[in-house]
Amino acid sequence: MNMTPETVDRRTAPLSTTTDLLQDYQRIRHDSETLCAPLEIEDYGLQSMPDVSPTKWHLAHTSWFFETFVLKPYLSGYREYHPRYAHLFNSYYETAGTFHPRPQRGLLSRPTVAEIYTYRAHVNEHMSHLLDELRHSQRADIVFRTRVGVNHEQQHQELLLTDIKYNFACNPLRPAYHSVALPDGQQPAPVQWCGHDSGVVEIGHAGEGFAYDNETPRHKTYLASFFLASRLVTNGEFIVFMEDAGYQQSRWWLSEGWKCVREQQWHAPLYWERGKEGGWWHMTLSGMLPIDIAAPVCHVSYYEADAYARWAGARLPSEAEWEVSARALSIQGNLRDTGRLHPCAVQAPAGEYGAVAQCYGDVWEWTQSPYGPYPGFHPLAGSLGEYNAKFMCGQMVLRGGSCVTPADHIRASYRNFFYPADRWQFSGFRLAKDAT
Amino acid sequence: MNMTPETVDRRTAPLSTTTDLLQDYQRIRHDSETLCAPLEIEDYGLQSMPDVSPTKWHLAHTSWFFETFVLKPYLSGYREYHPRYAHLFNSYYETAGTFHPRPQRGLLSRPTVAEIYTYRAHVNEHMSHLLDELRHSQRADIVFRTRVGVNHEQQHQELLLTDIKYNFACNPLRPAYHSVALPDGQQPAPVQWCGHDSGVVEIGHAGEGFAYDNETPRHKTYLASFFLASRLVTNGEFIVFMEDAGYQQSRWWLSEGWKCVREQQWHAPLYWERGKEGGWWHMTLSGMLPIDIAAPVCHVSYYEADAYARWAGARLPSEAEWEVSARALSIQGNLRDTGRLHPCAVQAPAGEYGAVAQCYGDVWEWTQSPYGPYPGFHPLAGSLGEYNAKFMCGQMVLRGGSCVTPADHIRASYRNFFYPADRWQFSGFRLAKDAT
Amino acid sequence: MNMTPETVDRRTAPLSTTTDLLQDYQRIRHDSETLCAPLEIEDYGLQSMPDVSPTKWHLAHTSWFFETFVLKPYLSGYREYHPRYAHLFNSYYETAGTFHPRPQRGLLSRPTVAEIYTYRAHVNEHMSHLLDELRHSQRADIVFRTRVGVNHEQQHQELLLTDIKYNFACNPLRPAYHSVALPDGQQPAPVQWCGHDSGVVEIGHAGEGFAYDNETPRHKTYLASFFLASRLVTNGEFIVFMEDAGYQQSRWWLSEGWKCVREQQWHAPLYWERGKEGGWWHMTLSGMLPIDIAAPVCHVSYYEADAYARWAGARLPSEAEWEVSARALSIQGNLRDTGRLHPCAVQAPAGEYGAVAQCYGDVWEWTQSPYGPYPGFHPLAGSLGEYNAKFMCGQMVLRGGSCVTPADHIRASYRNFFYPADRWQFSGFRLAKDAT
Amino acid sequence: MNMTPETVDRRTAPLSTTTDLLQDYQRIRHDSETLCAPLEIEDYGLQSMPDVSPTKWHLAHTSWFFETFVLKPYLSGYREYHPRYAHLFNSYYETAGTFHPRPQRGLLSRPTVAEIYTYRAHVNEHMSHLLDELRHSQRADIVFRTRVGVNHEQQHQELLLTDIKYNFACNPLRPAYHSVALPDGQQPAPVQWCGHDSGVVEIGHAGEGFAYDNETPRHKTYLASFFLASRLVTNGEFIVFMEDAGYQQSRWWLSEGWKCVREQQWHAPLYWERGKEGGWWHMTLSGMLPIDIAAPVCHVSYYEADAYARWAGARLPSEAEWEVSARALSIQGNLRDTGRLHPCAVQAPAGEYGAVAQCYGDVWEWTQSPYGPYPGFHPLAGSLGEYNAKFMCGQMVLRGGSCVTPADHIRASYRNFFYPADRWQFSGFRLAKDAT
Repeated sequence: MNMTPETVDRRTAPLSTTTDLLQDYQRIRHDSETLCAPLEIEDYGLQSMPDVSPTKWHLAHTSWFFETFVLKPYLSGYREYHPRYAHLFNSYYETAGTFHPRPQRGLLSRPTVAEIYTYRAHVNEHMSHLLDELRHSQRADIVFRTRVGVNHEQQHQELLLTDIKYNFACNPLRPAYHSVALPDGQQPAPVQWCGHDSGVVEIGHAGEGFAYDNETPRHKTYLASFFLASRLVTNGEFIVFMEDAGYQQSRWWLSEGWKCVREQQWHAPLYWERGKEGGWWHMTLSGMLPIDIAAPVCHVSYYEADAYARWAGARLPSEAEWEVSARALSIQGNLRDTGRLHPCAVQAPAGEYGAVAQCYGDVWEWTQSPYGPYPGFHPLAGSLGEYNAKFMCGQMVLRGGSCVTPADHIRASYRNFFYPADRWQFSGFRLAKDAT
Repeated sequence: MNMTPETVDRRTAPLSTTTDLLQDYQRIRHDSETLCAPLEIEDYGLQSMPDVSPTKWHLAHTSWFFETFVLKPYLSGYREYHPRYAHLFNSYYETAGTFHPRPQRGLLSRPTVAEIYTYRAHVNEHMSHLLDELRHSQRADIVFRTRVGVNHEQQHQELLLTDIKYNFACNPLRPAYHSVALPDGQQPAPVQWCGHDSGVVEIGHAGEGFAYDNETPRHKTYLASFFLASRLVTNGEFIVFMEDAGYQQSRWWLSEGWKCVREQQWHAPLYWERGKEGGWWHMTLSGMLPIDIAAPVCHVSYYEADAYARWAGARLPSEAEWEVSARALSIQGNLRDTGRLHPCAVQAPAGEYGAVAQCYGDVWEWTQSPYGPYPGFHPLAGSLGEYNAKFMCGQMVLRGGSCVTPADHIRASYRNFFYPADRWQFSGFRLAKDAT
Repeated sequence: MNMTPETVDRRTAPLSTTTDLLQDYQRIRHDSETLCAPLEIEDYGLQSMPDVSPTKWHLAHTSWFFETFVLKPYLSGYREYHPRYAHLFNSYYETAGTFHPRPQRGLLSRPTVAEIYTYRAHVNEHMSHLLDELRHSQRADIVFRTRVGVNHEQQHQELLLTDIKYNFACNPLRPAYHSVALPDGQQPAPVQWCGHDSGVVEIGHAGEGFAYDNETPRHKTYLASFFLASRLVTNGEFIVFMEDAGYQQSRWWLSEGWKCVREQQWHAPLYWERGKEGGWWHMTLSGMLPIDIAAPVCHVSYYEADAYARWAGARLPSEAEWEVSARALSIQGNLRDTGRLHPCAVQAPAGEYGAVAQCYGDVWEWTQSPYGPYPGFHPLAGSLGEYNAKFMCGQMVLRGGSCVTPADHIRASYRNFFYPADRWQFSGFRLAKDAT
Repeated sequence: MNMTPETVDRRTAPLSTTTDLLQDYQRIRHDSETLCAPLEIEDYGLQSMPDVSPTKWHLAHTSWFFETFVLKPYLSGYREYHPRYAHLFNSYYETAGTFHPRPQRGLLSRPTVAEIYTYRAHVNEHMSHLLDELRHSQRADIVFRTRVGVNHEQQHQELLLTDIKYNFACNPLRPAYHSVALPDGQQPAPVQWCGHDSGVVEIGHAGEGFAYDNETPRHKTYLASFFLASRLVTNGEFIVFMEDAGYQQSRWWLSEGWKCVREQQWHAPLYWERGKEGGWWHMTLSGMLPIDIAAPVCHVSYYEADAYARWAGARLPSEAEWEVSARALSIQGNLRDTGRLHPCAVQAPAGEYGAVAQCYGDVWEWTQSPYGPYPGFHPLAGSLGEYNAKFMCGQMVLRGGSCVTPADHIRASYRNFFYPADRWQFSGFRLAKDAT
């Protein structure tokens, strides 16, 4: 996602009633602050690598988004809260002014956490006023942009948790964000291979609900017949790959992946450590825990997912294969709303299998599809259209949301995207096969 | 291409008669040496950046390829020419032994140029003996692998010229490889937009002729209706982009491209320099020459091609769009065989237009397609299958060959691939548009 | 100083009476916390470059020093406060165990600031008990090491302020540590050249008072006759150099210095910025202030001091020249105790001049002496001796203390040392000349 | 030496008779070419690291030196040989025009080796004419600068051999420059400690012979009494250090040295490799040879020399200690003139010991003296004075010449200087001790 406000296709954004939108706005703004409740003041400022942003930066940037794209253009007489905040909290909108260098976000002890909460309250107060103006002459634009801003904030909530995990893992004390009991591991059902016939299908978003512009237009594509695994690859299965010298043999790896293995000395997924008495442990938002072999493997790069698939005699699915398989399912799973914030073994009874499952939640699933524009794609005009198209090179698509994704944020057509070497996201995978 | 021997789909390689193959072998081996005729001994060892290989390394590596994959397995009693050459001249075949680090190929003054020519003669002599054994029990394998080796050597011939150009451009004396008169520039015909209807098409290689495995299998894909430009973008057209502050405005650029522009201070295609009396000049294999505004723009990265297209209100074609448009044309154009080794203005009479033209030769054309496996793709087994699949991430497909590509090497289904920031190849582009 | 506890020559450390030492201990430990009073919690964790340490790390490291080198070996039954603090707060004592990588000190949000204050209180309580044991069998060692620890903590107090300034200067908001009125600038008296005859002199520490081991042994050295400037070079004088294209002409610079100028684009001392309405401003601990041309120039590297001296037809003094000139003066000047924490114009009446002045306080003075061992030097045995000798290569000696140095910490024989490119210390210089 | 023409103190340069100087000029210019006789054309262009220059660059640069500093100012009507050679072959004289970036010297295949020899002949011819003009109005300046140029060329002869060794060592074939039989190793005599009383001494150059300006002025300095080892540390002695885990224990190392050990994984002197059947081998100009334990250790950095000395309970000598000890000896030893080009065991009968020996030749001896200006030092005016002073920071002094130094180039007051981490020079060391 590149930590960015995603733009939406104006045509597909439903015009909520005022009440709903204001409620959504208030609920989601409040969620961001609730997620910070377990933190100490000292935790808010950490940036342990350039891709990670400090918690307080997330809190401020999402407020800047509303201030810049909603309040300043539409709220009569609104003056920006602080003359330097636009510079500090613009992420990368070249057309929206200058911005503080991303790798130096962690060097800003001021404004303080308390000041940022005050900033948030200021923005919330004015947003409420604006959203109450039911007869504003630009009401439609306000509703549309607020809807974008709310979804944008949900993305940053996910990043906030993802980044806190990375930050805490850099501390030898391995502090825990919270302490949650996870369900006992249980043996996952064997993988079933769910077939799909060849033919022209349609993918992409269409209809009333909210979607980002990169999910549009809905368009035709041809699929050869294929099989998709019924569930995600587990830690236990991944350990078999590791024990078969998976990280020591170049033949399973893409050339760029093998370079990562050697230069960064990958030998297991990110966060995995050998326990003092043997066995694998890993960092979680509940601190260091033993690996549950029944849970989906997480924090692997595209390269690791791809190497595993080759070793297993399979491949990763394309995003079209994933979407046509997953869209029949309801949005259920180990999403943020469970409060676990950690991938877990499938809890469903074995009888449910035989169909594709576990598509939503747990881990973002790497696909073999490079992130690019759909045929006929057009980004939005203006600054809001600046960032979706501009990342359409060099990244891979992930699907399905994870254990830190809000349930009301994910959908079948949702396209997440990261670089193939990235591992700090909650990323895993399932396998696919050619049918012929 | 990653400087690599590409593997072929065994099923599609025709079994030439002995005489033809030996003749092809001898002709193409001789071509490599003919291309070096203009060089001084000192030129053979240059490696001015890691992606570039010294001329003499190309000459030795292509010989090592035959020695390793043909002579050693199939010629009874053959002993390798030198015990360390495999280490020195293996490019990147992890399964074929160790190899000298790529960025240090330019540090090997020994073996000398004369020694490498002797090595080539040694390999040629034994290859001739082997190819004469018409009743060798593994005749089919020998023919197949020799065919691969011959095509591999042609790829390195192209790289040899491409690399020499880069090397010479690093020398303030700007030495010329040769001195060839180029045809006078003439105003190119206006672009025509050639339409194509939507529907399922087949692309990829099928049939008798030689092809690399990455061109297979032939498979179905769905195309929305589109328009393809009848010709390549010219230097003159690109200068308009430059003069419209194309390199100064972030809005035309992919995020990664904009990073290149700023960090590497791109302000024109590679090799372009301001003349002392104004006007643009550029390095060519004939030394410094003024820019011909009618000739296709060359030595641009994918990012520059993509930015130009966005500025022009168009886009780059997909590889499928290109292939279905180009495959009706015969393989003609400004290819290596013209001896120019430089992109030139279209020489065809204007009346020929109305259809797509200039597809073969001049410049490799960037497409918007990331390089990846075709549906159902399987690489060859063994070392020869090591390298095509392993580069299928992060690179973009280019099509059509360039002015340094042999005419008998290119075809409609041929897929070249380089990183989006690469500029030292003879790379240009044409535009495409959605039909709706 | 390399942020390090300096070791002392045991022979020269006076055995204070218990009362005095405990009082000193308590006073200096308290000083560290008083210096932090203006800070927000968020400020304590900043590390804006590898050479800088977070405030809270300084607070913890100085406590670890007493815990490791005094409490653990001498206080019966003492158990370390936390099993991981030794790893987190050891600076670089290879023989005292592992340590957290220096550039990652800013990534430790835990322990929190409050926890570190608790740690300090714990150490203080046990230190008080130990210092009360007047008849401890190893009383002499305890006194000696406590004396080292107290001086060590004073060094870190200086670094704490120096680092906070650097951290705050990285924030576009340019926050102020405090707000102190500085005396009005006044025209400094003209420089007087104070002569010294040639001959053998003695330098280095001898006698009862405390000194680090690198100040010993007192030894003979030969000095040719020389002149030393009566005062420091001022901002106004340095601006003349700048306006004479001092930063644009290679001829004034050491080769390594010229490399810094070009690569890091030096064009003025660190922290200097052009004001919006012209004139130079600079970051201070009281925030952005206009440059006072009468004040000593500060935050210059050795290279800048050396270049200025060459441009001025002079040179920097050697440390021996400085010491024999300064040691007759009493320890007075703009030291930390004035509370200004910023270099100021000389306040003394003009009549005092004619002799060397302004030696103590304001800025550390670069000398032309590389930091190395005095003839006959021997470091202490054990971990405490690990760090003084091991830095004796590649750094330059500075003398005299600065506006952030406690008055009871500095003396004529005191040797500070930093790399010639370092600029974040309060470093300036005075000129010298050969007498012949 | 920084690959640089060193300037001389005009006052100390003797005015040779014309005949002698022309003979010297011709002899030394001829020597440079004789040293290249064993090379292949391909060898002349190698630059395997930035500190190393290609052979042909040395040949051209030394010619440019005469052209720039002698022919152009003094030979009436002289025109430079090629308009771009000044740019290509100026090393770093900022005041003498632009120059090609040092790390890219190896990318210049043109001018060819033959062209550079022609350039040399051209310069030689004109120099002969100029040196024949006995009554030239600026005869004294011509003689002086020619003398500098001749010494400069000798320095580059040493670098040429040093650099060829490094280049060849980077080639897995480990080619030999020549093949010379070395004397059989013999047990070196035990070290004797030669004492020197304390007192004021004079060091530095004075008198008629040639010397660089950094050797002047002769000046007084005070020495405490000391002992100097009678001979160099041998390979056998250094192996004892290695086998005592010398490279594994931080306590022997300066902090910067320990950083090198870990980051560059030093575990033995440069060029040392384990033999296939055990034992140490190393690269020499005669190719790979077994280590002679009786020969002086070579290709060690200052850090290694310093660590060894600390481990041995000794220290390195200062340059003043070395000079007052060595200047009584005649210039004899294993210098370039023996043709061995490799350090060898002392050949002298044991009876000669009891006095300092082995001071000249074999290896440059690291001293503990940072390279800086002598008291009262003034560099020459103009471009020729540009480079000696400008390197007076961060480097260490080496004394005595090595097996690749011409015998008529070295003297007791000669100061060579390199960075403490440098290892590719023929550098070794002897020990010293305080007398008290």
